[in-house]
Amino acid sequence: MAVYTDVSDEALSTFLGEYELGPLVAFRGIAEGVENSNFSLRTGTGDYILTLYEKRVDAAELPWFLGLMRHLATRGVTCPQPVPGRDGEALRALAGRPAAITSFLPGVWPRRVRPEHCRPLGEALARLHGAGSDYAPVRPNRLGPDAWMPLLDSCRSSGDRVQPGLVAELDRALAHILPAWPGGLPRGQIHADLFPDNVFFLQGGSGGPGSRALSGLIDFYFACTDLLAYDLGVCLNAWCFEPGPRRPDLECPNLDFNVTKARLILDGYQSVRRLEPAERQALPVLAQGAAIRFLLTRLFDWVNTPDGALVTRKDPLDYLHRLRHLLAATPGALGL
Amino acid sequence: MAVYTDVSDEALSTFLGEYELGPLVAFRGIAEGVENSNFSLRTGTGDYILTLYEKRVDAAELPWFLGLMRHLATRGVTCPQPVPGRDGEALRALAGRPAAITSFLPGVWPRRVRPEHCRPLGEALARLHGAGSDYAPVRPNRLGPDAWMPLLDSCRSSGDRVQPGLVAELDRALAHILPAWPGGLPRGQIHADLFPDNVFFLQGGSGGPGSRALSGLIDFYFACTDLLAYDLGVCLNAWCFEPGPRRPDLECPNLDFNVTKARLILDGYQSVRRLEPAERQALPVLAQGAAIRFLLTRLFDWVNTPDGALVTRKDPLDYLHRLRHLLAATPGALGL
Repeated sequence: MAVYTDVSDEALSTFLGEYELGPLVAFRGIAEGVENSNFSLRTGTGDYILTLYEKRVDAAELPWFLGLMRHLATRGVTCPQPVPGRDGEALRALAGRPAAITSFLPGVWPRRVRPEHCRPLGEALARLHGAGSDYAPVRPNRLGPDAWMPLLDSCRSSGDRVQPGLVAELDRALAHILPAWPGGLPRGQIHADLFPDNVFFLQGGSGGPGSRALSGLIDFYFACTDLLAYDLGVCLNAWCFEPGPRRPDLECPNLDFNVTKARLILDGYQSVRRLEPAERQALPVLAQGAAIRFLLTRLFDWVNTPDGALVTRKDPLDYLHRLRHLLAATPGALGL
Repeated sequence: MAVYTDVSDEALSTFLGEYELGPLVAFRGIAEGVENSNFSLRTGTGDYILTLYEKRVDAAELPWFLGLMRHLATRGVTCPQPVPGRDGEALRALAGRPAAITSFLPGVWPRRVRPEHCRPLGEALARLHGAGSDYAPVRPNRLGPDAWMPLLDSCRSSGDRVQPGLVAELDRALAHILPAWPGGLPRGQIHADLFPDNVFFLQGGSGGPGSRALSGLIDFYFACTDLLAYDLGVCLNAWCFEPGPRRPDLECPNLDFNVTKARLILDGYQSVRRLEPAERQALPVLAQGAAIRFLLTRLFDWVNTPDGALVTRKDPLDYLHRLRHLLAATPGALGL
C-alpha cells in the first residue's frame, strides 16, 4: 500500500492554488510503491502524480532527485518531470510532508517479466547512465556496501526469528562479498532500484506483434552516485528470477534464474554502452551485493515493523534464495 | 491496500482484446477500497476502472450489482457504469477472478468531512433511494441484524484479545439493539456502505466559493434490499464523528459526534424524500445497529487476519467508541 499520509481537501485545495493547473478533477491513491505516498491527480490541464515524501526520504536530498529527473529528460530519458508552481518551485510541503507534483507517464509496468522486456530494459539502463554522466552533483549510496554490516547488526538479535541461522548465513555472505567488492569501476548516476514496477512499457513496440516499447522510467528516490554496473546487479536480481517448481525442502518460494533474460539485459545494455572487462568480471559479486542489499533492508523492515501496522512488508526470504543462487552459480550459469 | 490480485500483461492484453476500447495506455493499482482489487485503466478511448472481485463478493450476485448501477444511471444517479465487451457482456473473468470494467467518475472523496458535504450527501442518498425504488430484483442484506450474533459468535474465543471485556459488551449491546430493531419501515435498494471514500465531490458547487458539488457515488458491492433509513444510520456513523481532544482514559481515539453534520444530512435527505415518523423515531437504533455491523466485521477481520498478511485491517475499536456514544446519547444529542 502506498498511501501512508492522506491529504485533507482544504490542504489539497490550498496546495493546488500555488500552481497553474486549473481546477481539481480527480484525486486517487496509487497502490504501487512502498516508500512514499503517491496519488494520481487530474486537473483542468491534464494528469499528474502527486508524491508525498515519507520518512525514508531525506528532505534535504529532494532537490538532488528532482534535479536528476530534469537533467535526464533534457538528455532524452523519459521520466516524470517535476511541475513547478507559480513561484517556479517544484518542491513544497503538504500534510506535513515534502511534496511535489510530477508529470504523468503513460505505460504499464510488467507484472510478469518476459524476455521481450529485457533487451529494452538493458538499453534504457545504459542510456540512463549516459544521460546522467554530466549531472555533476553527487549523492552517496546510503544503502551501498558500507551500510550492509550496520544493517545486519541492527537485526542481529531478532533476525533469526525470521529463519533460524539467518544472521550467521548473512555474516558468511558478507565475509565473502565485502572483500571482493570492486573499487575502481566506472561510477556515475545510477537508479539503484530498477525493479519491474519502475519501468513502463507500451504495447506495440517496433519489434512486431507482442513486442513492447519501453515508455519510461520512474521512482528515482534511491538514485545515487555509485558503480554503474551495480545497476545491472540490481536488474539481474529483479528481472531474471522467476517462480520455479515447488520445492518442499525450501522455506521460501523456489526461484529459477532465467539465463536468457540476463543475456538480453546485458546485450541491450552493451548495444548502448560497452562494459569494461573489469565491470563484466565484477557482475557476479555486484549481483550478490544487490541481493544482500534488498535482503537486509527487507529484514530490517520485517523485524522493525510492528504487527498490525498498515505497511507492506516484503518477505526477506525471497532474497535469501536469490543470494544463495548468486553465490553458488558460476558466471556462465548466470549468462555473465 | 486495494490490489489483492495482480494481473499479468498477457492476461490483461487478452482481456482488453474482448472490448472495443483501443490500445492500453496506462494501468495502475488504486489504493482506495478494501474489498476488491481496483485499477485505473487508460486506453485509446478514455479512462476506466477495472475491478477484480475478491472473495467477499459472491460472483452469483454480481449481475445484481451491475444491474443496479445501470438502473440507477437511467434514473439520473451518477455512478460507475459497466462497460460491455464486444459480446455485450460486462462481467467476465481475469486472473481467476470475476472482473468488470466500469466508467471513470471524476471527483474527489472528502478526506475530512465538512458540514458543506453533508447536505449534498443527504440529498444524494434520498435520490438513490428514489431511483432504486423500481429496481425489482431483491438482494438480502447479508450483513444485517440476522448476521450480527453469528459474527460475534465467531469472534467469541478471541475477541477479548482485542480488548478485555469486548465480547460481553457486544453481547449487552446486541441484547439492546436486536429486540428494538424496527420491522415495518419502508424498504428498498440501499447502498449500505456510504462512507466518505464512496462519495465524490467536485469543487465549485452552486453554493458559492468553497462549496462542493456531489459528483457521484461509487462502490455498490454492499448494496442490498433493506430498510431505507438504515442507510442514514450508516451515514451518521461514517460522516458525523470527528476526532475530539485526546482522552488518556480511552483505549481508542476520542471521537466527537457533530450534531450539525447529522442535521444537515437529515435536512438534505428530507428535502428529497420525507422520512415517515416511524423512520425518524428508529434512527437512533438504526445508527447503533450500523455501528455494531461495522464493529463486528472489523473485529472478525482483525481476529481472522494472520499477522503480516498484506491486508488493511481497520481498527474495530473505532466503532466501539461510536457504538457507546450512540447507545448513550439522547436523540436530541444526535440531532435526530
